[in-house]
Amino acid sequence: MSDLSSLHICIVGLGLIGASLAKALRANGFSGTLSAWVRSEQTLNTARSQQVVDIVSTQVDVAAEADIVLLAVPMGVMRTQMSALNKVIRTDTIVTDAGSVKGCFVADAKAVFGSLSRVVPGHPIAGRETSGIDAAEAELFQSRMVLLTPTEETDADAVELVRQLWTTAGAKVEMLGYEEHDRILAATSHLPHAIAFALVDNLAHAAYSEGIFRYAAGGFRDFTRVASGDPTMWRDICLTNGPAMLEVMDAFSDHFSLLRNAIEKGDAEAIMAIFERAKEARDDHVHHW
Amino acid sequence: MSDLSSLHICIVGLGLIGASLAKALRANGFSGTLSAWVRSEQTLNTARSQQVVDIVSTQVDVAAEADIVLLAVPMGVMRTQMSALNKVIRTDTIVTDAGSVKGCFVADAKAVFGSLSRVVPGHPIAGRETSGIDAAEAELFQSRMVLLTPTEETDADAVELVRQLWTTAGAKVEMLGYEEHDRILAATSHLPHAIAFALVDNLAHAAYSEGIFRYAAGGFRDFTRVASGDPTMWRDICLTNGPAMLEVMDAFSDHFSLLRNAIEKGDAEAIMAIFERAKEARDDHVHHW
Repeated sequence: MSDLSSLHICIVGLGLIGASLAKALRANGFSGTLSAWVRSEQTLNTARSQQVVDIVSTQVDVAAEADIVLLAVPMGVMRTQMSALNKVIRTDTIVTDAGSVKGCFVADAKAVFGSLSRVVPGHPIAGRETSGIDAAEAELFQSRMVLLTPTEETDADAVELVRQLWTTAGAKVEMLGYEEHDRILAATSHLPHAIAFALVDNLAHAAYSEGIFRYAAGGFRDFTRVASGDPTMWRDICLTNGPAMLEVMDAFSDHFSLLRNAIEKGDAEAIMAIFERAKEARDDHVHHW
Repeated sequence: MSDLSSLHICIVGLGLIGASLAKALRANGFSGTLSAWVRSEQTLNTARSQQVVDIVSTQVDVAAEADIVLLAVPMGVMRTQMSALNKVIRTDTIVTDAGSVKGCFVADAKAVFGSLSRVVPGHPIAGRETSGIDAAEAELFQSRMVLLTPTEETDADAVELVRQLWTTAGAKVEMLGYEEHDRILAATSHLPHAIAFALVDNLAHAAYSEGIFRYAAGGFRDFTRVASGDPTMWRDICLTNGPAMLEVMDAFSDHFSLLRNAIEKGDAEAIMAIFERAKEARDDHVHHW
């Protein structure tokens, strides 16, 4: 197993990520076998009529012959699906995933498989506010970043094949430790979502909420876009990345209090210092995006 | 004074808002006189070479003949400029503005002019992260909302002329009480800016800030866009709308703490309830934007 093109890849879950990956591999000339294990009859029928993969089934047995199994399911069912897969896959089958939190995936995989030598945790940073197979598109990963977070136990050849898989799908692959991944994503992704969800829920229940939404402009729309994300997915992220999230939430709250107190005191210099540093940091980095 | 087209409008300050307004009035066939009182020689020269207005000067006397004076200057210098204007304008000259906070403008106008009968506080909701005369464009206000917040003392004919002014520039004009305006804008605009500035400044100083900006995706970019706003302008807003901002900042902090504590306890139901209500509120309202 050193060349991806002749392998059998089984995708578990044909939501936005799983179905987009199947379409991307197809569109970019992947010539091996593509199969999928799905939960609902509806997804099964859509996958069949759109010929998203070669073989699709609601039974786990479809994964038995796979060289690579990629779990693209909600974090909350990851472990259950791994346990079912463990009964049918080979001992050398590579197991990878597309979940947003990597520490809990590593722990679950260790508990289910015993060894992590064939386990390659992964995270495509390519979410959007739509979901499901109908939102899938072959271009979803084009030039987007995919973070692979192999453990110390993970075989190098397994990492290399998963890297090829995402590169074939059009993504830029980077390597990162899984603990560092979870701390960084807590700050850049999980915290902004938590803030946006809390803010919109708070404003929706304010006395003058009608006026708030009526007179909201582009800044508010962009700022709250992430609050249209899938609540189940984000609940699971909060539950599985709790410690890292609490750390960044508390650090943010402390900093927000500094600003609040500066406003209460009318401390123009302290307010200005925060705003100038923030603008400089954002303007410095936005050019790289 | 009931028909705008024959009047003399003097714009104080040719930054993004003032210069865009001049260009918009010109582009949409305004046939009266357009003048401008500016502070810097550089803006004066740019305004002259681009023929943004008919007459431009660094002396307040340019406003002496105006029927309508529109202040498009930072909140921090609004009162100083009004005091200077008060020495040259007629008693029936209409004074309006484009500032982000209306309560302090009303208080300053009352202190300077004594009477508010010719004062029409206004706020075009059309900001962006660029500023200055070079960023100005005639289309800035096209289909954007302008909120007028007349006081009980304000003459109806003055409000009507300022309404015509903004309508001519392409904007949709709505009326609102100035206290309500400041509470609503604190929630929809000032609070998101305060959060974004505090968040970016906080993350820029985190131990792993390089990774944070390196792996940030589209969600983070949109969420923090408002943190690229002009620090001076936002400092002034915090200083002039302090009480309303403290109210919404504290309400947000309380709600954010509820979410934080639910995450600490692993309370899936409480987390889900916040996320579902927020998504519903945002999805409900985004269709109107």
